[in-house]
Amino acid sequence: MSAPAQLVLRARAGIAERLALSAATAEGAHTATSEVPGWLDRHRQSGGTVVRRIPFAELDHWSFAPDTGNLRHSSGRFFTIEGLHVVRPEADWQQPIIVQPEIGILGILAKEFDGVLHFLMQAKMEPGNPNLVQLSPTVQATRSNYTKAHGGTAVKYLEHFLAPQRDQVLTDVLQSEHGAWFYRKRNRNMIVEVDGDVPVDDAFCWLTLGQILKLLRLDNVVNMDARTVLASAPALRAEPKALSSDPDLLAWFTGERARHDVRARRMPLRAINGWQTGEHSISRVDGRFFRVVAVSVEGAGREVGGWTQPIIEPVQPGIVGFAYRVFGGVPHVLAHARVEGGFLDTVELAPTVQCVPSNYAHLPAEDRPLFLDAMLNASPDRIRYSTVHSEEGGRFLNAESRYLIVETDETTTPTQPPPGYHWVTPGQLNWLAGHSRYVNVQARTLLAVLSTAIGGRGAL
Amino acid sequence: MSAPAQLVLRARAGIAERLALSAATAEGAHTATSEVPGWLDRHRQSGGTVVRRIPFAELDHWSFAPDTGNLRHSSGRFFTIEGLHVVRPEADWQQPIIVQPEIGILGILAKEFDGVLHFLMQAKMEPGNPNLVQLSPTVQATRSNYTKAHGGTAVKYLEHFLAPQRDQVLTDVLQSEHGAWFYRKRNRNMIVEVDGDVPVDDAFCWLTLGQILKLLRLDNVVNMDARTVLASAPALRAEPKALSSDPDLLAWFTGERARHDVRARRMPLRAINGWQTGEHSISRVDGRFFRVVAVSVEGAGREVGGWTQPIIEPVQPGIVGFAYRVFGGVPHVLAHARVEGGFLDTVELAPTVQCVPSNYAHLPAEDRPLFLDAMLNASPDRIRYSTVHSEEGGRFLNAESRYLIVETDETTTPTQPPPGYHWVTPGQLNWLAGHSRYVNVQARTLLAVLSTAIGGRGAL
Repeated sequence: MSAPAQLVLRARAGIAERLALSAATAEGAHTATSEVPGWLDRHRQSGGTVVRRIPFAELDHWSFAPDTGNLRHSSGRFFTIEGLHVVRPEADWQQPIIVQPEIGILGILAKEFDGVLHFLMQAKMEPGNPNLVQLSPTVQATRSNYTKAHGGTAVKYLEHFLAPQRDQVLTDVLQSEHGAWFYRKRNRNMIVEVDGDVPVDDAFCWLTLGQILKLLRLDNVVNMDARTVLASAPALRAEPKALSSDPDLLAWFTGERARHDVRARRMPLRAINGWQTGEHSISRVDGRFFRVVAVSVEGAGREVGGWTQPIIEPVQPGIVGFAYRVFGGVPHVLAHARVEGGFLDTVELAPTVQCVPSNYAHLPAEDRPLFLDAMLNASPDRIRYSTVHSEEGGRFLNAESRYLIVETDETTTPTQPPPGYHWVTPGQLNWLAGHSRYVNVQARTLLAVLSTAIGGRGAL
Repeated sequence: MSAPAQLVLRARAGIAERLALSAATAEGAHTATSEVPGWLDRHRQSGGTVVRRIPFAELDHWSFAPDTGNLRHSSGRFFTIEGLHVVRPEADWQQPIIVQPEIGILGILAKEFDGVLHFLMQAKMEPGNPNLVQLSPTVQATRSNYTKAHGGTAVKYLEHFLAPQRDQVLTDVLQSEHGAWFYRKRNRNMIVEVDGDVPVDDAFCWLTLGQILKLLRLDNVVNMDARTVLASAPALRAEPKALSSDPDLLAWFTGERARHDVRARRMPLRAINGWQTGEHSISRVDGRFFRVVAVSVEGAGREVGGWTQPIIEPVQPGIVGFAYRVFGGVPHVLAHARVEGGFLDTVELAPTVQCVPSNYAHLPAEDRPLFLDAMLNASPDRIRYSTVHSEEGGRFLNAESRYLIVETDETTTPTQPPPGYHWVTPGQLNWLAGHSRYVNVQARTLLAVLSTAIGGRGAL
């Protein structure tokens, strides 16, 4: 007894092909790429936002809980800053961590113009961005946003992401965010296609993927949320062969996840060891890694007129880089199965190098992160990509890193890498980024730019 | 500059095809299927194991911690029984939960005889199995096992799983276990192929997948660990079409995971509400769901001579069933995005029905679990599969459920199911079971038997 029903192909045809066509389209139907930086700048000027550091005592509606010392909003919503105790067999540390269990939506609206997919990008101010306004997804909404916990205005275009129609979703996957700063945070990364007219005001513009990829070559233009959403979209799987088959890659990853024993438990912020609380910051006694500070955001044209909030500030800029080699004609990058205390499950695939070098400057070479020197000492002709990007400006203040793709060789990055590292192709990384918790947020930024940096038919 | 290197096909050819051939091979090269029940019975007799209920006070090396009341072993290893507080917007409860952070290995060794893959299965005693000895994977080892925390003998064949060679791994994926009873437990589900000779004693035998599938029609013969490992192996993706494309299925799943707000925190066992502790058990005041009890295992020929342990005992047998319909010639089962308090991340895909009916017997029909009555009232000619299986006998005592696959129709299970339910094909379920935390352990048991129950080229 077979019921009549409308069946569809399981492998919905054409998504990766249409994205690749958009990536190959250097100029769009609406806005010239060269106009985008000026457009962002106009929004920077007209917004007139000033971000000012303030002491914790001047935070409005935010305070330290009397019992735990956790920093929280009087409404009980948004996020809290608590303590985290991470125990591993070889190490054991405590730190502040952002706790925000609700799942946000990072959504980009897509629409065909002249047969080519364009993406609706937003000029969005976030207080932690070094230049405040960056190119952002159509929608960045926490549940507090769209249930209007802070009494702001409605989030534009949100309705397209809350109940998308079948066949309109190009990608929809929960992705992790920074495991060093967030406790098990994940956001929904979505691209949804629309057919009908979409009214657009001056804070939004339609760009092809090719235009966005070109803008990804500029420092601090494309924000983190846009980068991770683009990385989650399916690319053409250009390479049928690789150093490892897909099953062997999964088996290696499973082994890495299984061999690491990471126990992370939340604890009262006031009780964490090795940190000191001042009027303006919570920082490590030795000054390394990051601090928790407070800012006042004034004159902002955002959802609400102005606000104060705590925010995490790294002590120095970071280096995030993939070592890149071609084996048998097929590009590979060297992925690292990296432990971060806030990950939901021990490890995710990270770039070859991901650190703040100044945290290790005092150490002898053999105690510094593996492959860091190969990145820092790369000759200019080996550097395929080098751009400064900042992390999510709603939670992180001036969290800039230089993102690098560096061509390396057998002497610095052997074909048989050390334990914890594995050569993967861009197609393999993209395949895994289609599921949750394989590829960390820094690796997703590099994944978004891989094809422009190293070529290859398989755009992104 | 392309380095010379041995590339391999990413999609390693032939794994699913070779498994399908094994599934189609009704008798193996070594042991007749009909001999297996008798062989298990001989081990049952020769082991002479007696499992006796004891009061908690007679537990050896296990005791309630003075501060938390958590039940733990004096070595600090194995597992603990603690309290869990689960908070959802619509409900809020506390319960005992097994905490065992270490990742175990469930491994089956595979080897070709006469060109057909055979699997090395073990006659293994576990105290919670209703008939003690069941057909089990080659290896079931917690890290405590193989680092010999309980001073036992080495785990046979373990070396094949600790460092398998490239191209020998047929599947290797971390899978969740019972979220109602375990706190975020996951085990490594592995099938590893060997070429060379494997010495085998009488506690082991080589069987084809076809033989194991036939044995899966018998009550309480194939243990849970074997079932989940087999479900994790790649099957032939027989159906190119389905009611939903794969991207739409993933988008639905992401939406389900995102829309559920589940906060689960461990708490002291002594402080949980609604439970009472007696000399012999920790049970709900209203008698529902499960209880924690203690057993003494005597005369066992296992790794150690005898032991005592706490164990979880459900109050009554369960019902676990998939509703099954054919749409446009393609088989589908009705999956449920189910919240379990111990899941690492809110929901996983569960069978259409998964419950202990007696927990709901006193409720009016409209308050009983959806689709339960359709399962219980199915006419015999609609029942495609009906077998009693028990859950992991190392942690669960007599945790029997009737596993059902029932052909349904539009009146009981509409083409457009209610929120939280989705029609998926066996191939889609198998695809998702290749990654962690999509398919729960009960659905994996049904996935392992789907092809025998409903036919189709895509074995398993």
